Amino acid sequence: MGRLLEGIKSPEDLKKLNIAELNELCSEIRAVLIDSVSKTGGHLASNLGVVELTTAIHTVFNMPHDKIVFDVGHQSYVHKLLTGRYDKFPTLRQYGGLSGFPKRAESEYDSFDTGHSSTSISAALGLARARDLRGGDYNVVALFGDGALTGGMMYEAMNDAGHAKTPLILILNDNNMSIAKNVGAVSRHLRRLRVSPHYFKSKEIVEDILNHIPVAGRGIALGIRKIKRKIRRLVIPTTMFDDLGFTYMGPVNGHDIEALIACLKYSKLEKRPVLIHVMTKKGKGYLPAENNPEKFHGVSAFDAKTGDIPVSRKSYSDKFGEILLRLAEENDKIAAVTGAMPSGTGLEAFAAKFPKRFFDVGIAEQHGVTMSAGLAAGGYIPVIPLYSSFMQRAYDQVLHDVCLQNLHVIFPIDRAGLVGRDGETHQGIYDVSFLSHMPNMRILSPVNYKQLDEMMEYAIYKCSGPVAIRYPRGSDELAAKLEAFDGQGSLTLRQGSDVGIIASGRMSIRAAEAADKLEESGLKPEILILTSLKPIDEAAIIAVAKKTGYVITIEDNVKPGGMGEAAAALLEEHGVRCGIKIFAVPDMPIPHGSIAELDRLCGLDTEHIVKEVLNGKGKT
Amino acid sequence: MGRLLEGIKSPEDLKKLNIAELNELCSEIRAVLIDSVSKTGGHLASNLGVVELTTAIHTVFNMPHDKIVFDVGHQSYVHKLLTGRYDKFPTLRQYGGLSGFPKRAESEYDSFDTGHSSTSISAALGLARARDLRGGDYNVVALFGDGALTGGMMYEAMNDAGHAKTPLILILNDNNMSIAKNVGAVSRHLRRLRVSPHYFKSKEIVEDILNHIPVAGRGIALGIRKIKRKIRRLVIPTTMFDDLGFTYMGPVNGHDIEALIACLKYSKLEKRPVLIHVMTKKGKGYLPAENNPEKFHGVSAFDAKTGDIPVSRKSYSDKFGEILLRLAEENDKIAAVTGAMPSGTGLEAFAAKFPKRFFDVGIAEQHGVTMSAGLAAGGYIPVIPLYSSFMQRAYDQVLHDVCLQNLHVIFPIDRAGLVGRDGETHQGIYDVSFLSHMPNMRILSPVNYKQLDEMMEYAIYKCSGPVAIRYPRGSDELAAKLEAFDGQGSLTLRQGSDVGIIASGRMSIRAAEAADKLEESGLKPEILILTSLKPIDEAAIIAVAKKTGYVITIEDNVKPGGMGEAAAALLEEHGVRCGIKIFAVPDMPIPHGSIAELDRLCGLDTEHIVKEVLNGKGKT
Repeated sequence: MGRLLEGIKSPEDLKKLNIAELNELCSEIRAVLIDSVSKTGGHLASNLGVVELTTAIHTVFNMPHDKIVFDVGHQSYVHKLLTGRYDKFPTLRQYGGLSGFPKRAESEYDSFDTGHSSTSISAALGLARARDLRGGDYNVVALFGDGALTGGMMYEAMNDAGHAKTPLILILNDNNMSIAKNVGAVSRHLRRLRVSPHYFKSKEIVEDILNHIPVAGRGIALGIRKIKRKIRRLVIPTTMFDDLGFTYMGPVNGHDIEALIACLKYSKLEKRPVLIHVMTKKGKGYLPAENNPEKFHGVSAFDAKTGDIPVSRKSYSDKFGEILLRLAEENDKIAAVTGAMPSGTGLEAFAAKFPKRFFDVGIAEQHGVTMSAGLAAGGYIPVIPLYSSFMQRAYDQVLHDVCLQNLHVIFPIDRAGLVGRDGETHQGIYDVSFLSHMPNMRILSPVNYKQLDEMMEYAIYKCSGPVAIRYPRGSDELAAKLEAFDGQGSLTLRQGSDVGIIASGRMSIRAAEAADKLEESGLKPEILILTSLKPIDEAAIIAVAKKTGYVITIEDNVKPGGMGEAAAALLEEHGVRCGIKIFAVPDMPIPHGSIAELDRLCGLDTEHIVKEVLNGKGKT
Repeated sequence: MGRLLEGIKSPEDLKKLNIAELNELCSEIRAVLIDSVSKTGGHLASNLGVVELTTAIHTVFNMPHDKIVFDVGHQSYVHKLLTGRYDKFPTLRQYGGLSGFPKRAESEYDSFDTGHSSTSISAALGLARARDLRGGDYNVVALFGDGALTGGMMYEAMNDAGHAKTPLILILNDNNMSIAKNVGAVSRHLRRLRVSPHYFKSKEIVEDILNHIPVAGRGIALGIRKIKRKIRRLVIPTTMFDDLGFTYMGPVNGHDIEALIACLKYSKLEKRPVLIHVMTKKGKGYLPAENNPEKFHGVSAFDAKTGDIPVSRKSYSDKFGEILLRLAEENDKIAAVTGAMPSGTGLEAFAAKFPKRFFDVGIAEQHGVTMSAGLAAGGYIPVIPLYSSFMQRAYDQVLHDVCLQNLHVIFPIDRAGLVGRDGETHQGIYDVSFLSHMPNMRILSPVNYKQLDEMMEYAIYKCSGPVAIRYPRGSDELAAKLEAFDGQGSLTLRQGSDVGIIASGRMSIRAAEAADKLEESGLKPEILILTSLKPIDEAAIIAVAKKTGYVITIEDNVKPGGMGEAAAALLEEHGVRCGIKIFAVPDMPIPHGSIAELDRLCGLDTEHIVKEVLNGKGKT
C-alpha cells in the first residue's frame, strides 16, 4: 500500500522525490489514512484535505530545525506519517499509542501541543521570538483553518505579530469549514478573496518563481528582488491581513503540490510576517468524506469501502437537542447559541425549525457567552451548549458577564467527564472545579435522559440566574431506569447502613455496580446521588455520613475543587466524624484511550472502588 | 459649579439645549469631574476624553429606550452625571455609593455591567438580537476605546455582527491609548486611517447632513437618500472594518459636539452595522491629565489645582519590577510579557533596560499566555505578571497551553485578593480556586517583599513547570518583618497549643493580629503560614490540627475551592478529629469600598475572627 511512504523515514527523504513521485506519495498517504482511520476512528476529512499541503511543507522546510505549529492539531496525521511514525500509525488514538494531536513528548517534530482552536499563531510567535532572542535562523510555520479565524486569539496574535515584523509564516488552510460550514464576516471576506482577480494566482506565476528561486533557498540572487516587486504588484494590499501587517499571498490551489512548493519557497525569502491563503477541499480524494465532510470530521471506525458509518445509540447530545426543540416550541423566549458545533451539540433540528432564534457564532466561545448574556439582559433565555473542555475558553465570560450579573443563561455542558480518544486537551474534567466558585451559578448533573429533560425544564422555568447542566459523552445506557430529579439536590438510590456511596452523573452507574459487589461481601451500602453539585445538598451528605460512618465519593472531575473535596470539607466543618475516601480524576494530564481504560487509569473502575472500600472497612 | 448640569435630571433635558449650551454644559461637566475625582479618586483621563461624545450620544439617542454598552465601563462617569446621578456623584467608588462602572442594579440607563475589556460588542449584539426577536425598535450603541480592539473578543463579535447585518452602532473612541500607549498592527492601521484623506471628514459634510436630517430622526425624507449616496462615495470600503461587514464612518473630531451629533444622527439612519471612528484626547481639558494620561487613568485623591498626586508607598508591583530587573540582569533567558500593563505591573524599568526581551501584547491575555508558552517551548523563561481578575481571561491558555505541557512560565499574580474601589469585576478573589485544579501548577503566596524576592528566585531556578505567585494590591506594610520562605511550603510564625491559625499572603497579618487578641483572652494560638497553596503542606496542616484540636483558616480568596476547603478536606480524609472554621470571601459578588470595609463585609476583620474563635472555643 505504501511503497514510497515506507521509504520516508524522515522528511529528509522527501527532498529526493520529484513532483510526480510526490504526487504518487500523496495517493499512498490518502490510501493509508482511509484504511487506518476506518479501523481506529479519528479525524479523517481534515487530514485528507492537507495531504499535498503537509507534504509540500515537509519538502520545503527542514523540520525539526524549522518548526511547525498545527492549529487544533487534528490535521497532523500526514505530518505524523512523514516524520517517522508510519509504523506506529495503526496505534493512533489507542491507549498507549500515538496521540491524535501533536505532542512534544511523542516526537521532536512536534513543536507545540495543541487541541483547542486558534492558539497556533500565538505559539508560533513565541517560538519565533525565542529564535530571534538567541539569534537562531529557523523558520516558524503556523498552519490553521479558516474556522480557527473565527476565534479571537488569532487577531490578538496577528495584531502583535503583524506589528513585530519578525519572520513568521502563516498558512491559512481555507476549506470554508469549521467542523460545520464556517460562519461570519471573515468567512465572507475570504470568499471574496477567493474569486478576486486581483490576487496572486499561483498558476500564473509559479513557473516564473520556480525559474528564479535558488534551489537551496539561501542567498538573495539578483533576480529575486525583481520577482519580489513583480509579486508585490500582484499582491494588492487591501485584505484584512495586509491591514494587520502581513504580506498576503494567494489564493493557492492546495492540491497542486508544485504550486504549493513554489509558494512556500518564496515565503521563506520574505523575512517578515507572511500569510499564505491555500484553498483545499475537506475530505479530498475520498468521495464519502468529500460529500459529507462534517460527518467525516471526527469518526469512529467505519466501512472504508462504502463509507458507511455504524449508527450509534442516541447520545446525550441528541437527546438534549430533542428536549430543547420541544421547549422552544412552547416558549418563544428560548434562543440557542453555538460555537461552531450545531451538529456536535445536537442543535441541527433547532436550527432548521427556528433559524431566527439560532445563532452560530463561530469558534468563539467567549463572544458566544457574552452575546448570550446580552440576549438575557434583553429578556430572552439563551441556551448555549458547549463541550466542557471548550467552555474553559469562556471562563471569564461565564464569571464576569453572566454570573456577576446573575443573568438567566443556560449552559448545557456536553462531553463532561472523561471523553476518551481525544486525550489530554479534550477531557471535560475541570468544569465542576471551575464553575463551583462562581457566584450565583447552579450546577446540575443528570444520571439519565429523563433527568436531563426535567433539569432543562427546571433551569428554564424555575431558575432566574445561570444554570449549568453537565452530561457525559455517549448515552445514558445502564442508568436509564434510575429515578427522577424533581428539583431536589439529591436522591437516595438505595438505603443502607454501613457504607455511604455519594456519586453523580455517569458515576451513578459505578455507584450502583460497586454497591452490588459490596452487598456480595456482606456490606449494606446506601447510595446518594447528587443531582445538584452547586448548591450541594449538605443535609443529605451529613445524614448519610452520620448514618453509615463511612462514605466514599465518586466523580469524573478532577479531585481538586471537585465534589468529593466539597463533601469532605463540609463534613469536617460540621464536625461529622466518619471515614471518607474520594474517588476522582487525579491531578495530572489524562491521556487518550477508551473511556473504560481511562476509568481504570483514574481508579474509577468498579473493581478498584470495591477493593478500596473493603480495605477501608477492614474487610481484607 | 454646574448651573446647566443641575438642570439635567434626565437625558431628555439635553434635547432642549442648543450647541452653545451643550458646549457650556461640557465645560461644567469637566469641572465637576476634576473636582469630584480629585476627592474620591477614580478614572479621570478617560472620562475627560469622552465629555462631548457622551453628551452627543445622550442628545441624539433616547436612553433608556435606546441602549448603550460601555466597554470596560470606567468611562461612564459623564453618562452617570447625565442620567440622574449628579447628586450622588460625590459617593463614587465609596462603600454603598455609586460604582465606578455601569451597573444594571444602579440605574435603568445602565444596560449591561462591564469591567473587563472588549466585551461591549458581544453584549450589544445580544441586546440587538433580543430587540430583533421581539420586533422592537431601539438603537444599540457600543462605546469602546482603541485599546479594547487589541482584545480578541472584539473580532469574534465583529465577525458575527458584521455577518448578521442587524442594526448596531459601534463607536470607536480612538485616543491611541490603552492605559499605556496602545500597541500592535490594528493601532497602526487606525493611525493610517486618521491621516488618510479618503475618509469621511466631518467638517466637510456636517453642514450638509445637518440641513437634511429631519429633527425627529424618523421617516426617511426624500433628501436623505441622496445624502446617503453622497456619503457612501466618501466612505471608501478599504478599512478592516469594511472587510468585517461594517459601514466605516470617520474619523470625526470627538471634541466637536456639532460634528458628533450629525454623525450619530446619520448612523441611526443606516439600519445596518456601523462603526464610527471618533478621535479624542485622553485627559482633554485638564492639562496635568493631558500631559500624563497614564498617570491620570486611574488615580487616588489628588490636588485638583496643581495636579499633584501624593506619592504612595512602594507597592508589590514596584517591588516585583525591581526583583525581575535584577534577575534579568543575571539571566538572559528571562523575558517579560505584559497585557497592556507595563506600568501597573511594575515592568517599566525592565522595558527600558531590556526592550528586546519585553513584549507588550495589548489587552490580550489569551495571546500573551500562549505566546509565553511558545517562548518557553523555545527555551526562554517568560514572566507574565497579570492582575488576578484579568488572568481569568486566560484560564484556558494557562491550563491548555502551559500546564498540560508543563512549560516553565512564571505568573506573578498582581492585585490578588480584595482590590477595593473597583468592585465586583476587579476583585482578585478567584485565582486560588481556578489555579488549584490545574495539573503541574504551583501556587506560591508571599507574606512580604523578602519572600516575593525568594519566591521569584525559586520559581526561576528551582522549578521547571508553571509557577504562580500571588500578591495583593498595595504594599507589605506590617508584614515586612515576617520570616523567610526558604522554598518550604509553610512556616510556623508562632508556637501555641490550643488554636491553630492557618493563613497565607496578606491574611498573615490578620493571623498575627488575631493571635495577639486571643492571647489576651488566655489562649495560646499557633500560627502556620502557607507559603505554598499548591502543593499544600499536608503534614504541617495535619500537625497543627492534631496539636491544637481546633484550627481556623484565613484567606482572601472565595471559599469554594480555596485554601480553607482544601485544608478541611485534607483533615477529613486523614481522619483528623478537630474543630475547624474557615474564614474566606463569601460566595457572592463583592462590591466596591475600601479594603478595610470589604474585609469587614467578608468577615475577614480581626474583631470578627477573634469573636468567632472565642465562640468556637466556648470562651463566650
